[in-house]
Amino acid sequence: MAQSQIGLIGLGTMGGMLALNIAEKGFDIAVFNRTTSVTKTFHENAGELASKITPCESLEELVKSIAKPRAIILMVPAGEPVDQQIEALRAYLDADDLIIDAGNANFHDTERRAAEAAKAGPRFLGIGVSGGEEGARHGPAIMGGGEQQDWDRVAPILNAIAAKFDGTPCAGFMGKGGSGHFVKAVHNGIEYADMQMIAETYGVMRDGMGLDSQACGEIFAKWDEGALKSYLIEISGKVARATDPESGKPMLDIILDRAGQKGTGRWTVIEAQHLAAPVPVIEAAVMARNLSSRLVARQQGEEMFGAAPEALPEGALSADDLENALIAGKILCYAQGFELLRSANAPFDWDLPLPDIALVWRDGCIIRSAMLDDMASALSESPDRNLMYAPYFADLLKTHHSALRKVVSIAAAHGLAVPALSMALSYFDTMRTARGTANMIQGQRDFFGAHGFERTDREGGDFHGPWAM
Amino acid sequence: MAQSQIGLIGLGTMGGMLALNIAEKGFDIAVFNRTTSVTKTFHENAGELASKITPCESLEELVKSIAKPRAIILMVPAGEPVDQQIEALRAYLDADDLIIDAGNANFHDTERRAAEAAKAGPRFLGIGVSGGEEGARHGPAIMGGGEQQDWDRVAPILNAIAAKFDGTPCAGFMGKGGSGHFVKAVHNGIEYADMQMIAETYGVMRDGMGLDSQACGEIFAKWDEGALKSYLIEISGKVARATDPESGKPMLDIILDRAGQKGTGRWTVIEAQHLAAPVPVIEAAVMARNLSSRLVARQQGEEMFGAAPEALPEGALSADDLENALIAGKILCYAQGFELLRSANAPFDWDLPLPDIALVWRDGCIIRSAMLDDMASALSESPDRNLMYAPYFADLLKTHHSALRKVVSIAAAHGLAVPALSMALSYFDTMRTARGTANMIQGQRDFFGAHGFERTDREGGDFHGPWAM
Repeated sequence: MAQSQIGLIGLGTMGGMLALNIAEKGFDIAVFNRTTSVTKTFHENAGELASKITPCESLEELVKSIAKPRAIILMVPAGEPVDQQIEALRAYLDADDLIIDAGNANFHDTERRAAEAAKAGPRFLGIGVSGGEEGARHGPAIMGGGEQQDWDRVAPILNAIAAKFDGTPCAGFMGKGGSGHFVKAVHNGIEYADMQMIAETYGVMRDGMGLDSQACGEIFAKWDEGALKSYLIEISGKVARATDPESGKPMLDIILDRAGQKGTGRWTVIEAQHLAAPVPVIEAAVMARNLSSRLVARQQGEEMFGAAPEALPEGALSADDLENALIAGKILCYAQGFELLRSANAPFDWDLPLPDIALVWRDGCIIRSAMLDDMASALSESPDRNLMYAPYFADLLKTHHSALRKVVSIAAAHGLAVPALSMALSYFDTMRTARGTANMIQGQRDFFGAHGFERTDREGGDFHGPWAM
Repeated sequence: MAQSQIGLIGLGTMGGMLALNIAEKGFDIAVFNRTTSVTKTFHENAGELASKITPCESLEELVKSIAKPRAIILMVPAGEPVDQQIEALRAYLDADDLIIDAGNANFHDTERRAAEAAKAGPRFLGIGVSGGEEGARHGPAIMGGGEQQDWDRVAPILNAIAAKFDGTPCAGFMGKGGSGHFVKAVHNGIEYADMQMIAETYGVMRDGMGLDSQACGEIFAKWDEGALKSYLIEISGKVARATDPESGKPMLDIILDRAGQKGTGRWTVIEAQHLAAPVPVIEAAVMARNLSSRLVARQQGEEMFGAAPEALPEGALSADDLENALIAGKILCYAQGFELLRSANAPFDWDLPLPDIALVWRDGCIIRSAMLDDMASALSESPDRNLMYAPYFADLLKTHHSALRKVVSIAAAHGLAVPALSMALSYFDTMRTARGTANMIQGQRDFFGAHGFERTDREGGDFHGPWAM
């Protein structure tokens, strides 16, 4: 019997889609699920791809079905199940076999597993896979971490199944250990921020400008033809224009404004805090999701203080203002995201390929967009430069920050909550204020805690003020 | 020889001050420092308090100098040194002796140490001590965590050395394990936010209104006579009015705007993320400190985009506007802080006494203020209610949020970065928007990930939209 080129464990939605994608690209794949009936059903439903797929009823059978040196993708729930699966596989695998965790691992776990693998074998790769079900089935973005030689071994398969941007696979090797899953986490944080900024512009249109869902949807569709062209803007347009088949009302009017989260935005923010890398737009987005879930408290607040959003004066803001504000906000948010990536290099001993990350994110993943292609160019020119200082984006910011300013200012005046856009603006203005206000904070700290300060007129760092306690 | 009532290990600045405070309140105290000369010098310089202090040259001598059951305060650097010190003491202590960690412990460490103590002895209390040097010497705020009986045993000493507000000691028992250090951490997060909001109003005065330091200082001094009366406003006024003896210039003009941090604000934000408790004003403050340290990047930004801050039109904002904005911002920031405290109860199995916390914070600590007395009243009336909904503070918000709105709006329009005030406003407006914009986010999530949503017109939580992929 001919052996499969790769194996996959875990035929949940994402695992199943990934297996079909692999089979469709011409690779023979052996699959296994803890529940045998799931494996059987999966194989039965695989249609013409079934001939490429070998369903296995035991780990042992799976391992025997794969050509040596073996490569096995894990698509099991993150956390304990991954460790258990690795442990179970160890009995059957050789030292040069390769386990690939393609689930949503916390990158710290991936770091640990990579270190354990280096000691006890088998070999280990952690790959972040983005793009949801659709992406898994027809082309995700793939961010790999581990040893280069292991990536190279499976790169032909991963490149084949990945999304393509102008023919280039959206798959890349990010570096050692947990780097792939770290890059995926930052992707997810940016995704939160993108979604929140879009929702804020929707709020201004709906509550401030009095537009109905259809009109909002048309505006998003128009934006999708310009600098904001992206999957999230595209689907925002579709969501806004969709009608609920049951009630005949716009979908947006029947969807409750209580957002769920799986915690990936929170992870990103926590890591950013550990790395002292400011990601205020992502933080604002996570806050907004948290507050959205406090529906009763918000109802209580509206009752007590009156509803926050006010209609804007006629012509106070235009759709173009919102589009330009969102362009500026997006650049600033991504600048923060790439700064966060860069800040992880020293502590984790990585050398994250920032231009490649932008290239990989151009398609397949949720934040895919035209702008990422330009970001890749800017980062290629000068990988160590904050994106907001790259000429192309600096020019965009110069022409668009006044719109961001206008939107934040008018929204604040009229009770339209725009936390993410506000923080994009605060970041921008702080980053172009050579003489900030932290001198007051340093004065306070020295006053109450004798923490010392630096002076504007002299080198050195431990001066104290003549404070009269 | 008469034995001491308490011992103290670690005669660094804070430890030394605390020992003098204890001696001054009439308690006999035995002290020990790893470096014997430090102990000697400390005792020699203790003046008339020297007779209450027994300097010890070894741990053994220290332990023998203390009456049973012993109580020993640790004032050693947080982290490893605390564990080492506990381990070293174990050899000399009885099971009912008590170790009190009064350092800046991460509360997770205190949780662990309390659990270890419960198993292996000796007994253990973790107390948060706030107020800096001055507070340690003349009256800090003290937040204790551990077993009630252990707190009760040393409460006479802790109450005696604590600051007093209208005669009431600013010391309190917060609950089990690490609760005392957790409350201290939240205190520090609020401290960051308070300082940042003050710095933002200073920035608007300086850059927007063109006021010199002296004028800013006079305004802070005036605020210190009203609703904002607090230690931080008081010292901000003093810092702003101080003159550098060397150059003759205002102190604020010679202090570099690059703020340090010891990470306590960051800890608070990270815990808040774990607890899904939004503290956006603290987050903004931590961001601002981080960005303040990027001086070169900010200089580069100013060169590239022009200096952010613009002078405001004559009369655009008044000092009263700023005062009222700061009152609103402060209420909202503290509302978030107390929500954070409340959110820790379930996961850590605590029952944090919120009114007591406000009472303890009224004096001795850095955030001490008149307003905390009113917060204590509001929390006593209804401990489970968000502070912003308490009648007294709701009324203040009703009359002051328009000033916050005005300041944020005008600052945004003129490049004056006010991230913390912006996030206070965003929080307020989000919390009084019964129909927010997370319906768009839920629509997006269901579109790309089939995450499901709730409907506005029906119960249940797993509806899906008719998305055409």
